[in-house]
Amino acid sequence: MRRTSALILIGNEILSGRTRDENIQFLARRLGELGIPLREIRVIPDVRETIVRTVTELRAAFDEVFTTGGIGPTHDDITAPCVAEAFGVPWEIDPPTFALLEDYFHKSEFNTARQRMAHLPRGATPIANPVSLAPGFSIGNVHVMAGVPRIMRAMFEELAPSLKKGPPVSSTTWHTLSLYEGTLAQGLEDVQDHYPQLDIGSYPFHREDGSYGVALIAKGQDEAAVQAAAREIHDLIVEKGGTPIAGEPAR
Amino acid sequence: MRRTSALILIGNEILSGRTRDENIQFLARRLGELGIPLREIRVIPDVRETIVRTVTELRAAFDEVFTTGGIGPTHDDITAPCVAEAFGVPWEIDPPTFALLEDYFHKSEFNTARQRMAHLPRGATPIANPVSLAPGFSIGNVHVMAGVPRIMRAMFEELAPSLKKGPPVSSTTWHTLSLYEGTLAQGLEDVQDHYPQLDIGSYPFHREDGSYGVALIAKGQDEAAVQAAAREIHDLIVEKGGTPIAGEPAR
Repeated sequence: MRRTSALILIGNEILSGRTRDENIQFLARRLGELGIPLREIRVIPDVRETIVRTVTELRAAFDEVFTTGGIGPTHDDITAPCVAEAFGVPWEIDPPTFALLEDYFHKSEFNTARQRMAHLPRGATPIANPVSLAPGFSIGNVHVMAGVPRIMRAMFEELAPSLKKGPPVSSTTWHTLSLYEGTLAQGLEDVQDHYPQLDIGSYPFHREDGSYGVALIAKGQDEAAVQAAAREIHDLIVEKGGTPIAGEPAR
Repeated sequence: MRRTSALILIGNEILSGRTRDENIQFLARRLGELGIPLREIRVIPDVRETIVRTVTELRAAFDEVFTTGGIGPTHDDITAPCVAEAFGVPWEIDPPTFALLEDYFHKSEFNTARQRMAHLPRGATPIANPVSLAPGFSIGNVHVMAGVPRIMRAMFEELAPSLKKGPPVSSTTWHTLSLYEGTLAQGLEDVQDHYPQLDIGSYPFHREDGSYGVALIAKGQDEAAVQAAAREIHDLIVEKGGTPIAGEPAR
């Protein structure tokens, strides 16, 4: 059984260009390793209707949905109540989380804003936060994590053992110098036709010293097919007069 | 009139984690400057139905839609025919583009694969490519650009003068050390309530030397309101015992 996932980055900072994303590549690679490859990513603002609609749509379309961002104490941290709304359940105090945070902050500092972080959708399971304590959570197939990369990674690793996994994604890359995509394109389409279950990718590169070439990748969850496609790619490069070099090109 | 935009990154390389995105931040900032702020981003694979559906949905929901990726010569470069399908028009040879590329590649090298790059949706306007010649295009409110960052940027600047602009997004940032988000949250919500037309953002930071703090941002297309909100943010930091420092914190 193939499994699929989607990722929702919630917050204005990437949309405005303030921040460069630091979460996508980590999650894309880890989900590939776990055999739950990422098939769609959305970046959306802190807007209630948008969050509710996006979670509702993607949790129906993919096996697992991961979100990052919007679970802190401030007014724009609205991910958790929106996910509750998408599931049609109340957003309410989770007593164990409340006790945990009340102890951490001491009563005098545990103000209304911070108490937001002790609310979860009813029926959600907390995801432990070994960095800064306030948890993420899973409800159904939706997994809600922090946006701060260090905290997100820690939460993901807390969550990973409980995820249902598929065959890991494997890939083999050859590159060649001094050939263009346009020269290899027809042969590459033939390789794709032989292995419709794989993604056969072609990525041209141009270096500052003037050298150029193409990286060709066979990728998928059928390891034997990946190896066979990689051999065909190797032979195609030779046929077109190039020298196949294993792996990604150096920058 | 406020104007809005969406961005679609088309291709498997970001979803698989092979490549880290290099296009979002540039486009987010430039579109903010042009007063057409980005309200949603989607990253989708080279899958026909997904591309057609996503273009159709977003071009109805936003004033302008930008796409990157999938316009080269290989089998997985299917953005242009999919956009044609979304508009219900044929994807066909564009004679001026054909002549341009035929001359560039010389007849013998201008094979079927490369001729794909001379096809446009009927009625599209080419976007010149000063780097590698094969053009992008605009059709209706959809603007199709290359995925290679250097080429995308050149195409965007070719396109920019013809885009209908809005008031530029401006922003003012204060940061403070040694205060937590949870301490500032209620006051910040008050600022947001005073200026509902702005995005008031709060971004905690933790440095490797153990120092920490929060950056607070007022951002929007109403310059006078941004300045007024920034003054309130300054005073809030003082009230809570912090020292307001102008701009983003150093890393």
